[in-house]
Amino acid sequence: MRPEGAPRPSCTTDGKSELHTQLQQLAKAAGLAAAVRINKSGCLDQCEHGPTVVIYPEAVWYGNVKPEDAVEIVNEHLLGGRPVERLRIADTCLNAKSCPHRS
Amino acid sequence: MRPEGAPRPSCTTDGKSELHTQLQQLAKAAGLAAAVRINKSGCLDQCEHGPTVVIYPEAVWYGNVKPEDAVEIVNEHLLGGRPVERLRIADTCLNAKSCPHRS
Repeated sequence: MRPEGAPRPSCTTDGKSELHTQLQQLAKAAGLAAAVRINKSGCLDQCEHGPTVVIYPEAVWYGNVKPEDAVEIVNEHLLGGRPVERLRIADTCLNAKSCPHRS
Repeated sequence: MRPEGAPRPSCTTDGKSELHTQLQQLAKAAGLAAAVRINKSGCLDQCEHGPTVVIYPEAVWYGNVKPEDAVEIVNEHLLGGRPVERLRIADTCLNAKSCPHRS
Protein backbone atom coordinates (compact mmCIF):
# COMPACT_ATOMS: atom_id res chain seq x y z
CA MET A 1 0.00 0.00 0.00
CA ARG A 2 1.16 3.47 -0.81
CA PRO A 3 1.07 5.88 2.14
CA GLU A 4 -1.83 8.28 2.66
CA GLY A 5 0.22 11.34 1.81
CA ALA A 6 1.38 9.93 -1.54
CA PRO A 7 0.35 11.75 -4.72
CA ARG A 8 -1.85 8.80 -5.56
CA PRO A 9 -2.48 7.11 -2.23
CA SER A 10 -3.86 3.58 -2.23
CA CYS A 11 -7.62 3.61 -2.41
CA THR A 12 -7.41 1.77 0.93
CA THR A 13 -8.76 -1.67 1.56
CA ASP A 14 -10.63 -0.49 4.66
CA GLY A 15 -14.25 -1.34 4.26
CA LYS A 16 -13.96 -2.50 0.68
CA SER A 17 -14.97 -6.06 1.43
CA GLU A 18 -17.71 -4.80 3.65
CA LEU A 19 -18.86 -2.50 0.86
CA HIS A 20 -18.95 -5.40 -1.56
CA THR A 21 -20.86 -7.55 0.90
CA GLN A 22 -23.32 -4.75 1.62
CA LEU A 23 -24.00 -4.14 -2.06
CA GLN A 24 -24.42 -7.84 -2.68
CA GLN A 25 -26.80 -8.42 0.20
CA LEU A 26 -28.87 -5.33 -0.47
CA ALA A 27 -29.14 -6.03 -4.20
CA LYS A 28 -30.23 -9.57 -3.46
CA ALA A 29 -32.76 -8.42 -0.88
CA ALA A 30 -34.11 -5.95 -3.43
CA GLY A 31 -34.77 -8.81 -5.86
CA LEU A 32 -31.99 -7.75 -8.20
CA ALA A 33 -29.92 -10.94 -8.05
CA ALA A 34 -30.80 -11.97 -11.60
CA ALA A 35 -30.60 -8.47 -13.06
CA VAL A 36 -27.48 -7.00 -11.48
CA ARG A 37 -24.11 -8.52 -10.77
CA ILE A 38 -22.14 -7.03 -7.90
CA ASN A 39 -18.66 -7.85 -9.05
CA LYS A 40 -15.17 -7.24 -7.78
CA SER A 41 -12.75 -5.62 -10.14
CA GLY A 42 -9.06 -5.30 -10.57
CA CYS A 43 -7.50 -1.88 -10.00
CA LEU A 44 -9.70 0.78 -11.56
CA ASP A 45 -6.86 3.31 -11.48
CA GLN A 46 -8.86 5.83 -9.47
CA CYS A 47 -6.66 5.55 -6.38
CA GLU A 48 -7.10 9.15 -5.30
CA HIS A 49 -10.87 8.72 -5.20
CA GLY A 50 -10.77 6.01 -2.54
CA PRO A 51 -13.00 2.94 -2.73
CA THR A 52 -14.59 3.16 -6.15
CA VAL A 53 -17.76 1.67 -7.61
CA VAL A 54 -18.56 1.79 -11.30
CA ILE A 55 -21.95 0.85 -12.64
CA TYR A 56 -22.27 -0.41 -16.19
CA PRO A 57 -23.68 -0.16 -18.76
CA GLU A 58 -24.37 3.41 -17.72
CA ALA A 59 -20.72 4.05 -16.77
CA VAL A 60 -21.48 5.97 -13.60
CA TRP A 61 -18.48 6.18 -11.28
CA TYR A 62 -18.68 6.64 -7.52
CA GLY A 63 -15.73 7.55 -5.33
CA ASN A 64 -14.92 7.38 -1.62
CA VAL A 65 -17.81 4.99 -1.21
CA LYS A 66 -18.45 3.78 2.33
CA PRO A 67 -20.27 0.58 3.26
CA GLU A 68 -23.13 2.69 4.60
CA ASP A 69 -23.55 4.27 1.15
CA ALA A 70 -24.53 0.90 -0.31
CA VAL A 71 -28.19 1.25 0.59
CA GLU A 72 -28.49 4.53 -1.31
CA ILE A 73 -26.70 3.11 -4.36
CA VAL A 74 -29.02 0.09 -4.43
CA ASN A 75 -32.24 1.96 -3.72
CA GLU A 76 -31.65 5.09 -5.73
CA HIS A 77 -29.49 3.92 -8.60
CA LEU A 78 -30.11 0.20 -9.11
CA LEU A 79 -33.77 0.21 -8.22
CA GLY A 80 -34.71 3.78 -9.02
CA GLY A 81 -32.46 4.48 -11.98
CA ARG A 82 -31.28 7.73 -10.39
CA PRO A 83 -27.51 8.05 -9.95
CA VAL A 84 -26.42 9.18 -6.48
CA GLU A 85 -24.98 12.58 -7.35
CA ARG A 86 -23.26 13.18 -4.00
CA LEU A 87 -21.02 10.15 -4.57
CA ARG A 88 -20.26 10.66 -8.24
CA ILE A 89 -16.77 11.17 -9.56
CA ALA A 90 -17.10 13.94 -12.10
CA ASP A 91 -16.24 12.80 -15.62
CA THR A 92 -13.59 15.51 -15.69
CA CYS A 93 -11.95 13.92 -12.64
CA LEU A 94 -11.67 10.46 -14.19
CA ASN A 95 -8.10 9.79 -15.24
CA ALA A 96 -7.34 13.49 -14.88
CA LYS A 97 -3.87 14.51 -13.79
CA SER A 98 -5.41 16.90 -11.30
CA CYS A 99 -8.86 17.96 -10.25
CA PRO A 100 -10.60 19.29 -7.17
CA HIS A 101 -11.08 15.82 -5.67
CA ARG A 102 -13.78 15.31 -3.18
CA SER A 103 -12.31 14.22 0.12
CA MET B 1 -11.00 -25.67 -9.64
CA ARG B 2 -14.04 -27.69 -10.63
CA PRO B 3 -13.30 -30.60 -12.98
CA GLU B 4 -13.81 -30.33 -16.73
CA GLY B 5 -16.80 -32.64 -16.74
CA ALA B 6 -18.68 -30.67 -14.08
CA PRO B 7 -22.00 -29.07 -15.05
CA ARG B 8 -20.32 -25.71 -14.71
CA PRO B 9 -16.62 -26.42 -15.13
CA SER B 10 -14.14 -23.76 -14.07
CA CYS B 11 -13.51 -21.31 -16.88
CA THR B 12 -9.90 -22.48 -16.60
CA THR B 13 -6.98 -20.29 -15.74
CA ASP B 14 -4.97 -21.54 -18.74
CA GLY B 15 -3.98 -18.59 -20.85
CA LYS B 16 -6.05 -16.09 -18.89
CA SER B 17 -3.06 -14.08 -17.74
CA GLU B 18 -1.59 -14.33 -21.20
CA LEU B 19 -4.91 -13.14 -22.64
CA HIS B 20 -4.91 -10.16 -20.28
CA THR B 21 -1.32 -9.33 -21.16
CA GLN B 22 -2.02 -9.65 -24.86
CA LEU B 23 -5.03 -7.36 -24.69
CA GLN B 24 -3.10 -4.85 -22.63
CA GLN B 25 -0.07 -4.76 -24.91
CA LEU B 26 -2.08 -4.63 -28.12
CA ALA B 27 -4.41 -1.91 -26.83
CA LYS B 28 -1.42 0.15 -25.77
CA ALA B 29 0.34 -0.41 -29.10
CA ALA B 30 -2.85 0.70 -30.84
CA GLY B 31 -2.77 4.00 -28.96
CA LEU B 32 -5.76 3.11 -26.82
CA ALA B 33 -4.07 3.35 -23.43
CA ALA B 34 -5.94 6.53 -22.47
CA ALA B 35 -9.26 5.48 -23.98
CA VAL B 36 -9.64 1.86 -22.95
CA ARG B 37 -8.84 0.11 -19.69
CA ILE B 38 -8.01 -3.59 -19.92
CA ASN B 39 -9.09 -4.66 -16.48
CA LYS B 40 -9.23 -7.90 -14.59
CA SER B 41 -12.52 -8.83 -13.05
CA GLY B 42 -13.82 -11.03 -10.35
CA CYS B 43 -15.83 -14.08 -11.35
CA LEU B 44 -18.24 -13.14 -14.15
CA ASP B 45 -20.33 -16.24 -13.53
CA GLN B 46 -19.97 -17.49 -17.10
CA CYS B 47 -17.91 -20.54 -16.14
CA GLU B 48 -19.23 -22.73 -18.94
CA HIS B 49 -18.12 -20.22 -21.56
CA GLY B 50 -14.46 -20.47 -20.62
CA PRO B 51 -12.22 -17.41 -20.42
CA THR B 52 -14.61 -14.50 -20.77
CA VAL B 53 -14.13 -10.92 -21.85
CA VAL B 54 -16.83 -8.29 -21.50
CA ILE B 55 -16.54 -4.90 -23.10
CA TYR B 56 -18.35 -1.96 -21.58
CA PRO B 57 -20.16 0.33 -22.07
CA GLU B 58 -21.48 -1.68 -25.02
CA ALA B 59 -21.90 -4.84 -22.91
CA VAL B 60 -20.56 -7.23 -25.51
CA TRP B 61 -19.57 -10.58 -24.03
CA TYR B 62 -16.97 -12.91 -25.53
CA GLY B 63 -16.49 -16.52 -24.49
CA ASN B 64 -13.77 -19.12 -24.83
CA VAL B 65 -11.37 -16.36 -25.68
CA LYS B 66 -7.82 -17.44 -26.45
CA PRO B 67 -4.75 -15.23 -26.20
CA GLU B 68 -4.46 -15.31 -29.99
CA ASP B 69 -7.96 -13.81 -30.26
CA ALA B 70 -6.75 -10.62 -28.60
CA VAL B 71 -5.53 -9.04 -31.82
CA GLU B 72 -8.94 -9.39 -33.42
CA ILE B 73 -10.73 -7.98 -30.38
CA VAL B 74 -8.42 -4.96 -30.31
CA ASN B 75 -8.38 -4.31 -34.06
CA GLU B 76 -11.97 -5.09 -34.91
CA HIS B 77 -13.84 -4.15 -31.75
CA LEU B 78 -11.79 -1.57 -29.87
CA LEU B 79 -10.37 0.20 -32.89
CA GLY B 80 -12.99 -0.57 -35.51
CA GLY B 81 -16.13 -0.57 -33.39
CA ARG B 82 -17.22 -3.91 -34.87
CA PRO B 83 -17.86 -6.68 -32.33
CA VAL B 84 -16.17 -10.00 -33.16
CA GLU B 85 -19.24 -12.10 -33.86
CA ARG B 86 -17.46 -15.47 -33.86
CA LEU B 87 -16.47 -15.00 -30.21
CA ARG B 88 -19.69 -13.55 -28.90
CA ILE B 89 -21.73 -15.21 -26.20
CA ALA B 90 -25.31 -14.91 -27.36
CA ASP B 91 -27.42 -12.77 -25.04
CA THR B 92 -29.72 -15.78 -24.64
CA CYS B 93 -26.76 -17.78 -23.31
CA LEU B 94 -25.83 -15.28 -20.62
CA ASN B 95 -26.95 -16.54 -17.24
CA ALA B 96 -29.15 -19.15 -18.96
CA LYS B 97 -29.67 -22.47 -17.25
CA SER B 98 -28.95 -24.20 -20.55
CA CYS B 99 -28.10 -23.20 -24.09
CA PRO B 100 -26.22 -24.61 -27.06
CA HIS B 101 -22.85 -23.45 -25.79
CA ARG B 102 -20.08 -22.97 -28.24
CA SER B 103 -17.20 -25.28 -27.45
